Amino acid sequence: MAASHSPRAGFVIIGNEILSGRTQDANLPYLAQRLGRAGIAMVEVRIVSDERDAIIEAVNTLRARLDHVFTSGGIGPTHDDITAASIAAAFDLPLDRDPEAVRRLERHYPPDKLNAARLTMADVPRGAGLIDNPVSAAPGFRVENVYVLAGVPAIFRAMVDMVVPHLAAGPPILSRTLSSHLTEGLVAAPLGRLQEEFPDVAIGSYPFYRNDRLGVSLVLRSPDPDRLEAATAAVALMIRALGEEPLAEPDATAEAQPPVH
Amino acid sequence: MAASHSPRAGFVIIGNEILSGRTQDANLPYLAQRLGRAGIAMVEVRIVSDERDAIIEAVNTLRARLDHVFTSGGIGPTHDDITAASIAAAFDLPLDRDPEAVRRLERHYPPDKLNAARLTMADVPRGAGLIDNPVSAAPGFRVENVYVLAGVPAIFRAMVDMVVPHLAAGPPILSRTLSSHLTEGLVAAPLGRLQEEFPDVAIGSYPFYRNDRLGVSLVLRSPDPDRLEAATAAVALMIRALGEEPLAEPDATAEAQPPVH
Repeated sequence: MAASHSPRAGFVIIGNEILSGRTQDANLPYLAQRLGRAGIAMVEVRIVSDERDAIIEAVNTLRARLDHVFTSGGIGPTHDDITAASIAAAFDLPLDRDPEAVRRLERHYPPDKLNAARLTMADVPRGAGLIDNPVSAAPGFRVENVYVLAGVPAIFRAMVDMVVPHLAAGPPILSRTLSSHLTEGLVAAPLGRLQEEFPDVAIGSYPFYRNDRLGVSLVLRSPDPDRLEAATAAVALMIRALGEEPLAEPDATAEAQPPVH
Repeated sequence: MAASHSPRAGFVIIGNEILSGRTQDANLPYLAQRLGRAGIAMVEVRIVSDERDAIIEAVNTLRARLDHVFTSGGIGPTHDDITAASIAAAFDLPLDRDPEAVRRLERHYPPDKLNAARLTMADVPRGAGLIDNPVSAAPGFRVENVYVLAGVPAIFRAMVDMVVPHLAAGPPILSRTLSSHLTEGLVAAPLGRLQEEFPDVAIGSYPFYRNDRLGVSLVLRSPDPDRLEAATAAVALMIRALGEEPLAEPDATAEAQPPVH
């Protein structure tokens, strides 16, 4: 399938507050869509606690099997911020105070505010490359194919925007969505036959329940615009043959995501 | 630490639409909070694609190391709904058509609507226990310590409410949150000392940025109400010593979540 040519990414979300349900992660949708537009497929996400062994296991597993791995969270100055030390341990590297990171903190904080706790935010695994933090100075960092970013969404997004343009892009993957008030049970058989007819177009089926009505969104993805248009036309024909009209999806054509099938 | 006595849970979210960023998962916060009130700690979440091997790996890893594992998604009637077959493979069980599940579908659908695709929603691993679906009949199921639930949030929540009361509950864990307009860098040193003074109270520090102001929420968790109150009083004293007042958090005392430290 076409997807096998896309670079593949993973994401490790570090934070007890996400696991406990106290805070809802908002970073995955941003990262996945940003990568998708660069032709890079997000294929696995792990949410782990603020525990050294949990972080090491997730990062080491994903960095060995994927092209790029991102992490979010745990790079602040408090006792529960253990991401930098855990990443250093994952790579078997010492944790060093980075002189350039210290300079950035010195430029950001008045001298009497740059205390010992804040200076720990300049500690990174030896040899790591720094990632700019345009919001609050304390940098993220990169070790090999692992990008360690802040968890606060405004900072996370700024760092993603900084990193993604430098990654090797995959072939752009186009996507089309056709929603209708049909139900999955009605479309299942003819849709399965269309998936067999278009093995190079990934077709996903996502039921929804809005305004007291059931419906289904059919999402088609392919790097080949002609095949995507042909499959989309065939799915639209199927929807009409079942007695419904595709609903308007204003942003469907602007979307560009890689398949993960 | 007290957390070691809490039963531990994992969650496998199955779905390309979550990975691609097209849809934001809304099920984790509900499940984690519902488990938290039952004294069960959510300790690891994996989001995987609609691929058999990815589902098998995640489920087999988590079910071996945790007390309870939940999955969401992929139990509909379309070609990309492969969760039941993947769970059967994970347990090395055959996939059988369950007569009781067929009866439930027969009660829900008019005879001319119960087609072959919909009947596949009655296929479960041999010996699985069914989980009621009060919304659209097609059941979830349980195999050993793995609970396989629908991805559509309304159905997912109904199934969670059905399952959780039957799980062995842990000691109830209480939580208190103290937010203020201090920053993490200012609280880091005294907060670290308080964490050492109260090793049996898990203290988390979560920065926020609201209405153009930085701040930090300090979340304390413990099964011991007296120790929790003592630690909360000490943290409040620390906040006032640093020149701020704790902000009102109306729902803090109603919250009850297990620590995952």
